[in-house]
Amino acid sequence: MFRPQIKVMDCTVRDGGLMNKWQFSDEFVREVFKACNAANIDYMEIGYLSSESAFSRQEYGAWKFCSEADIQRAINGIDKKIKLSAMADIGRIEYNDIPPKPESSLDMVRVACYVHQVDAAIALAHHCMEKGYEATINLMAVSTVGLRDLEEALDDLAKSRVPIIYLVDSFGAFYSEDIDTLSQKYMASLPDKTIGIHCHNNQQLAFANTIAAIINGVNFLDGSLYGIGRGAGNCPLELLISFLKNPKFRLKPLVEVIESQILPWTKKIDWGYYIPYMITGVLNQHPRAAMAHMESDQKDKISDFFNRITSATDLV
Amino acid sequence: MFRPQIKVMDCTVRDGGLMNKWQFSDEFVREVFKACNAANIDYMEIGYLSSESAFSRQEYGAWKFCSEADIQRAINGIDKKIKLSAMADIGRIEYNDIPPKPESSLDMVRVACYVHQVDAAIALAHHCMEKGYEATINLMAVSTVGLRDLEEALDDLAKSRVPIIYLVDSFGAFYSEDIDTLSQKYMASLPDKTIGIHCHNNQQLAFANTIAAIINGVNFLDGSLYGIGRGAGNCPLELLISFLKNPKFRLKPLVEVIESQILPWTKKIDWGYYIPYMITGVLNQHPRAAMAHMESDQKDKISDFFNRITSATDLV
Repeated sequence: MFRPQIKVMDCTVRDGGLMNKWQFSDEFVREVFKACNAANIDYMEIGYLSSESAFSRQEYGAWKFCSEADIQRAINGIDKKIKLSAMADIGRIEYNDIPPKPESSLDMVRVACYVHQVDAAIALAHHCMEKGYEATINLMAVSTVGLRDLEEALDDLAKSRVPIIYLVDSFGAFYSEDIDTLSQKYMASLPDKTIGIHCHNNQQLAFANTIAAIINGVNFLDGSLYGIGRGAGNCPLELLISFLKNPKFRLKPLVEVIESQILPWTKKIDWGYYIPYMITGVLNQHPRAAMAHMESDQKDKISDFFNRITSATDLV
Repeated sequence: MFRPQIKVMDCTVRDGGLMNKWQFSDEFVREVFKACNAANIDYMEIGYLSSESAFSRQEYGAWKFCSEADIQRAINGIDKKIKLSAMADIGRIEYNDIPPKPESSLDMVRVACYVHQVDAAIALAHHCMEKGYEATINLMAVSTVGLRDLEEALDDLAKSRVPIIYLVDSFGAFYSEDIDTLSQKYMASLPDKTIGIHCHNNQQLAFANTIAAIINGVNFLDGSLYGIGRGAGNCPLELLISFLKNPKFRLKPLVEVIESQILPWTKKIDWGYYIPYMITGVLNQHPRAAMAHMESDQKDKISDFFNRITSATDLV
């Protein structure tokens, strides 16, 4: 029943950190690492690669940077089966700040870019591959990209040496029919590549859309524990693992770490299904306005948010 | 873009009441009625029809009974465009306790039954139709029904005069591929009937599965405000309305009533995505064990629940 090519990536620390500036304790990251390792998840994205000159450690937690010293605090002494990944944003990391692979516990660098940054993303991904890492390009916010720009980007990606290209629903705007259409387009345009999927849950469709992608042949699947991630969050990893029929995966370590590490964060930050996130998803907008609303002391004033955000739209 | 045959039913009070024994105030029900009416929702299920001799009003709120006096407190003085429905469970209502249609503000009775109760359900639905009501039969827990029993039930339903038959995912166990298969089976077996869909959200698939049913030709769609309903709850009505492209529907009254009436209940009862509900959904079990766990003072002890509930399964 299972498809052996499928690889699952946990994005708990990387995407969840967008909600708290990566202010996760070393214990939190270590426990998530231990659990994903024990559950036989294929990859764990432990944070972002960012230049220390671009961001302050006074403002951002360690997982915005993912230095080897940071990573060691999370993983040392544990028999590492899982591969580690970090995400790099175009313009937020200097090439020279990426260590050669022999000096790093990272196995993969995922380069996130918008459609106009594809050339820069290919160059950075190639650079990471030359340093010894696996690499992907995650083309963000594709729900806002027109057909001609998308086709040009996919043509450029097809000519690159980057082996894994992600379809990303940054705004949680897609229905499963959109995922069908785009998965098929990515696979037709990138016949020699592996396609990945990263969904957001604004319309409670992150898991369903990940399943739709699987049915269409997408093989790299992102999830996070209890769906923690920016705004409405991601595809819940525990649902994804319970769906996949690969007997190597184990659910129990994920339930345990949700109890010990994730549930306490539900009292501190508001990811998941909330009406402001739902509205920006329906409107195919960046969640920043919804996040600002949810961080205010007026977060239950959802009618005010609706009226403000829809004043320039036909949503009634 | 929209399909005019589609009808949407709000189940907020009826299914939500399974979480609080229908202890909703008259104001709550009135405001939900006003909002659904203003949003041009087609039907509102205002509760259950139950015999007063079978249940106590000291234990259960008015919406377990839905007498005409109860209903009038919710709707009097309001220009009623929406149709009203109540659900009847086999064995919990005496025929004589159902008033003739001219004495009632109800437009529809939905008869809920398990597969072994289909004959009794058909008789009750026919009785309601003879009294002047629209009627449906909602065949519950079909995720636990074997093929032969299902085919026999569908044959019986095909021979009945009941015009609307619901596919019900009581345990939140179905993936969209199950909905595809079953929607097609229901439509092929019941070519002269309208098919409905009622989903539960244990795996965050209630909305996605409702969309899958729509794509397969299902035309009666259940939802509830903010997904309120038993256990993980239902398909969120606001998501469903934002998806359907019928310009008659309005989203704003739903957002307003979620703010004024539903958000306060999120502080008192725990419907929605919680790991215990997810686990019973994955295991295709009734949510009662998960509900008992969530009502205990140990609700965050999800590992204990996982270990207890999976001790007789192969979920690891």
